[in-house]
Amino acid sequence: MEFELIDRIRERAASRRDVRLGIGDDAALLAVPAGQLLTVSTDTLNVGVHFHAETDPTALGHKALAVNLSDLAAMGAEPAWCTLALSLPGADPAWLDRFLDGFLGLAAQHRVALVGGDTTRGPLSIGVTVHGFVPAGQALRRDAARVGDDLWLTGSTGDAAAALAGAGQGEIAAALRERLERPTPRVEAGLALRRRAHAAIDVSDGLLADLGHILHDSGVGAEIELDALPVSEALAALSDGTARWEWQLAGGDDYELLFTAAASARASIAAALAATATPAVRIGRIVAGSGCRVLGADGEWTPSRRGYQHFT
Amino acid sequence: MEFELIDRIRERAASRRDVRLGIGDDAALLAVPAGQLLTVSTDTLNVGVHFHAETDPTALGHKALAVNLSDLAAMGAEPAWCTLALSLPGADPAWLDRFLDGFLGLAAQHRVALVGGDTTRGPLSIGVTVHGFVPAGQALRRDAARVGDDLWLTGSTGDAAAALAGAGQGEIAAALRERLERPTPRVEAGLALRRRAHAAIDVSDGLLADLGHILHDSGVGAEIELDALPVSEALAALSDGTARWEWQLAGGDDYELLFTAAASARASIAAALAATATPAVRIGRIVAGSGCRVLGADGEWTPSRRGYQHFT
Repeated sequence: MEFELIDRIRERAASRRDVRLGIGDDAALLAVPAGQLLTVSTDTLNVGVHFHAETDPTALGHKALAVNLSDLAAMGAEPAWCTLALSLPGADPAWLDRFLDGFLGLAAQHRVALVGGDTTRGPLSIGVTVHGFVPAGQALRRDAARVGDDLWLTGSTGDAAAALAGAGQGEIAAALRERLERPTPRVEAGLALRRRAHAAIDVSDGLLADLGHILHDSGVGAEIELDALPVSEALAALSDGTARWEWQLAGGDDYELLFTAAASARASIAAALAATATPAVRIGRIVAGSGCRVLGADGEWTPSRRGYQHFT
Repeated sequence: MEFELIDRIRERAASRRDVRLGIGDDAALLAVPAGQLLTVSTDTLNVGVHFHAETDPTALGHKALAVNLSDLAAMGAEPAWCTLALSLPGADPAWLDRFLDGFLGLAAQHRVALVGGDTTRGPLSIGVTVHGFVPAGQALRRDAARVGDDLWLTGSTGDAAAALAGAGQGEIAAALRERLERPTPRVEAGLALRRRAHAAIDVSDGLLADLGHILHDSGVGAEIELDALPVSEALAALSDGTARWEWQLAGGDDYELLFTAAASARASIAAALAATATPAVRIGRIVAGSGCRVLGADGEWTPSRRGYQHFT
C-alpha cells in the first residue's frame, strides 16, 4: 500500500530541468547553479500540536509547504525543490489527494519540484525540507542588523493568533482563519530584498520573539512604535486595545518578513516590494544596546508574553 | 524550552568548510562542489512502527542516520550534510544527549555536518534528510541493470529480521539484535562502486522486494542461487532451512547494497570492495524477462512473502 501512495504522489509531482532524477530511486539527483549557495530548511507540523485532526487537508498541504518557503524567503533564497515526509494513521487516498491539492498547488506557484520523501505509518505528521539557491554573499542573515537601520515588516501580524484564540465571528473570523490556515510565504519579497536589506527573519513564533533572534545574533537593540504596527481590517474591527497588540507582537504563525535596512534604502525597498505587490511598512529602528522597547502613546508598553514556546 | 534543546544540539554539531551557515538562522547555506550533483534522500522513523519506545536512544540515533546514509551509499554518493526533525513527547535533555551520542557519532565517522532541523512536540519521531554529492553520470541508479550482469550483495541479510522475530538466545540473539539496531551504512562501498557497478539499491524492505525495484525499473529479470546467499555466523547457527531463507530474502532492515555489474568487472569490484573492507559476493545474475527466480538444490524456491510492506 505504501507504494500505491508513493505512486499517487509521484504521478502528480511536477519536475524542473535541474532535477536530474526525481522521486523513485534511493535519492534525488539535483543540479545547483554555479555561483549559488544551496539553501536548506526543514519544518514539521504535528497533529494536535500545530493543527487539529479535522483541519482541511488542502489547507494543511498548503501550510506545510508555506511555512518552509517562508524560511527560504527570509534568507532571500529562490525556492527550487522539496522533500515530503508524511506519517499517516492509515492509507486514505482521498485525504492524500486533497492534501496534495494544497501542497502541490503552492509548489506550482513557486515552481518548486517535489523530488523525494517517504510515507510511514504513525500519527499524522508532515515533515518538509525545502531547497533553494542564493548567490554567495547575498543571503539575508539574522546577524546582519546595524545600529541606525530601519525595522520593516511585510503585511501584518496578529490575525493567525486571533484566529487560534477563536476571536471574532462571521466574516471577521473567516478572514482571520484564512491567515492562520493559508499563510502567504513572502518569497518574491525575499528575493526583492537581496542587496537591499541587511538582516531578515520570518515571523513564526511571534514578532518580538523572532526580532529577539536578530537582536541577539546582531548584538543590537530595537525600538518598535505601537502606532506604526500594520493591522488587517479584520483584526482592526475586532480590537483596538491591548489584546490586538498582544496578538500582533507575541502571537506567532504570521509568516511575514521582519527585516532591517539602511535608511538610505527606503525608496529602493518601497519600490522593489511594490513591484512584487507586497505591502510593507517601517515599524521601528535598530538601536545600540540589547532587547526591544515597544513605544506607545503612553510610553513603553510591555506584552504579557513574548511569543510561542514549545514544551511550555 | 525548545531553544534549550536546539542550543544543546547546536553545541554538539560539528561543521565542515563547505557549510557557510549552519544551525541557527532561517536556513543553512551550503556550497556544492562544481561538477557534482546534489544527492538528497529523506527517511523517518516513528515510535511503535519502526522502533519500540524503550529502544536505547544511542542506537536509535545511530540508526536514524544510518538508514539515510544507506540511501546515499546506494547512489554512490559522498555524504556531506543532514538535517534532523525531532518530535519529542517532552523535553528530556538526558535522552537527547544519548540520542546525539549515536547520531553525531555516526555523523562524525562519515564527516557529515548537521546543518539544521527542528524540534517539535509530538509522539517520538525522527525525520532525517541527508545531502551528498556524486559526479554527474556516475550515480548508481535502479534503472541501469543489464541482461548478463552479475548480481552482487554486500555483507549478509536476514539478521535484522531474525532479531525482530525474537529468534535465538544469548550471544546469538545479541549478535542479531546488533544488526537490527546498529546497521552499517555501506558508504565506502557505494563510493568504490562508482564506474564499476551498473544498478544499485539498498536492502531495506527485503532483498526480493528491493531487487524488484531494480528489475522493474531496468526492464529485466533475475535469478538468485540460494546456495550463494551469504549468511552471518549467528544466523547460520540458528537455522539452515526455510526460516533462514525467508529472513534473508524477505526480511528487511538489512541496509546492505544489492547491485549489478558486468562480469568483466568482477576482479575490479572484488579489489575495490576489499580495499574498503566490505565483504561482498555474487548471488545470481540478471536475465531477460521480468521477476526473480530463486534457485535451490531442489529446483525453484518460493518464499511465503516478498518483503516488508507498510500499511498491511
